[in-house]
Amino acid sequence: MKLVSYRVNQRDTYGVYEEMENMIWNLPSLEESITGEKTLPDTLLAAIAAGEEFTERAKQWLETAGDKEKEAAAVSAEEIEWLAPIPRPSKNIMCIGKNYRDHAIEMGGEESIPTDLMVFTKSPTAVIAANEPIPSHEGLTNALDYEGELGVIIGKKGKGISKEEALDYIFGYTIINDVTARDLQKRHKQFFLGKSLDGTCPMGPWIVTKDDIKDPHNLNIETKVNGEVRQQSNTKHFIFPIDEIISTLSKGMTLEPGDVIATGTPAGVGQGMNPPGLLKSGDTIDINIEQIGTLSNKVQ
Amino acid sequence: MKLVSYRVNQRDTYGVYEEMENMIWNLPSLEESITGEKTLPDTLLAAIAAGEEFTERAKQWLETAGDKEKEAAAVSAEEIEWLAPIPRPSKNIMCIGKNYRDHAIEMGGEESIPTDLMVFTKSPTAVIAANEPIPSHEGLTNALDYEGELGVIIGKKGKGISKEEALDYIFGYTIINDVTARDLQKRHKQFFLGKSLDGTCPMGPWIVTKDDIKDPHNLNIETKVNGEVRQQSNTKHFIFPIDEIISTLSKGMTLEPGDVIATGTPAGVGQGMNPPGLLKSGDTIDINIEQIGTLSNKVQ
Repeated sequence: MKLVSYRVNQRDTYGVYEEMENMIWNLPSLEESITGEKTLPDTLLAAIAAGEEFTERAKQWLETAGDKEKEAAAVSAEEIEWLAPIPRPSKNIMCIGKNYRDHAIEMGGEESIPTDLMVFTKSPTAVIAANEPIPSHEGLTNALDYEGELGVIIGKKGKGISKEEALDYIFGYTIINDVTARDLQKRHKQFFLGKSLDGTCPMGPWIVTKDDIKDPHNLNIETKVNGEVRQQSNTKHFIFPIDEIISTLSKGMTLEPGDVIATGTPAGVGQGMNPPGLLKSGDTIDINIEQIGTLSNKVQ
Repeated sequence: MKLVSYRVNQRDTYGVYEEMENMIWNLPSLEESITGEKTLPDTLLAAIAAGEEFTERAKQWLETAGDKEKEAAAVSAEEIEWLAPIPRPSKNIMCIGKNYRDHAIEMGGEESIPTDLMVFTKSPTAVIAANEPIPSHEGLTNALDYEGELGVIIGKKGKGISKEEALDYIFGYTIINDVTARDLQKRHKQFFLGKSLDGTCPMGPWIVTKDDIKDPHNLNIETKVNGEVRQQSNTKHFIFPIDEIISTLSKGMTLEPGDVIATGTPAGVGQGMNPPGLLKSGDTIDINIEQIGTLSNKVQ
């Protein structure tokens, strides 16, 4: 299932996206037309937080809904404003640094391949939707760069999670462009500021629930800038696989439903090219991840 | 005014603390008994976010309240469970690294004195109240350390804030113990993980509204461990003063009401001592900041 958040008639809501028909089943409406009740909360984040059975219930409604019930919940994707699936995470996005060997090497040679998980964060104010413009932040940065990444959405609260049970804590997957101001990243030493400018965390277009991803450690990932392939890899090349990331993060820090983890970017960022291929106004970045889709954004 | 968040009868609420009488005026009750209406939101964070006039209104109620109205809102501090003033910030706490010259030197010599703001974050799940135990995280870290810091609470939304107008964006001040697992901080390179273990962000005991602090750049700050003075400085020694911090942070990143900024710690952390004076179970840390008060916590 592809879960989307969107705005229609000045109201933010969410539903299941049907790519073939380019339409959305609004989930709160579908629940109400089927059960006669409204128990779902107002946002996808709150629905994820409300418990694991959410995905199962949504699936069941879609399977059992009659034509009349479906009609009450159907929305054309032409009529809506797309939002990021989690437009406002309830804490910073957690990002894994240098999680592909070839990217670590392009950024600082063999010695920069990490032996332990490197984690920094992006402010939740940086999140934007698919197709929303990325501000160029002219005058503040001269070195805006793209980083295509698999995003992991946590589905339940946990601490001290073992590697064996780690994948049970996942709700689903999305795509993240970890847009980075390289000059600020370098100048301010710790990565936070160079990673947190407004609009530098495109996320989406949807969350694919985990049951639809056979193996998150075998997904092709590709980033294009203006149609030219810049990054091309596969999540099987992670230095730290997802179960290890979740286990290490949660050793002493409680993870919560709706937490967003960006799993790191492969080689081919603009900064690593010779000459550098950094972003400029008008550039379009398309990040495609197998079994998920494509996240596209243009620099303003 | 000292604003506190607290729990009473399983309900979280907030009010004004009267230190002399060790009692609290519950603000939602005071409003209701004076105006006959309840317009205040349920949390101090939401009240801060609702607008700048909050402090002024609360002050006016306290001045005009008669005995009967005050009685309806009075709570003995003996009866309540203290919470951190913002028990759950809506994003990570932003922390300034090495903002006192002498601390930068004790951590890495003259060359580690920063020329640009260094910013990392702590997860909001790390926040605990005054007097709440700090978990020792035995088996995960052998190097838990204290860092006494002035906390700044942002009062209104802003971006591109100039140094001249920066102090207008402040709601008030608090005390933060930026407890740090030195071994994790070092091992994971970026500071986030070593700074975000559960219970490693004691905050409070209250927020002092900004009108009660004459000059935030001239406050004595002192940290004691088991009664022994470890850190002793004054906020006049900041490398980056608060107006510059707010201006630099907001250049490309929107600041929001309720944002918490920890302004950095002076020399005298456990790691900087010879031999190191790191924390062990049973240690009590008291951080005193002039015009604010004392934040005390014990390691479990």
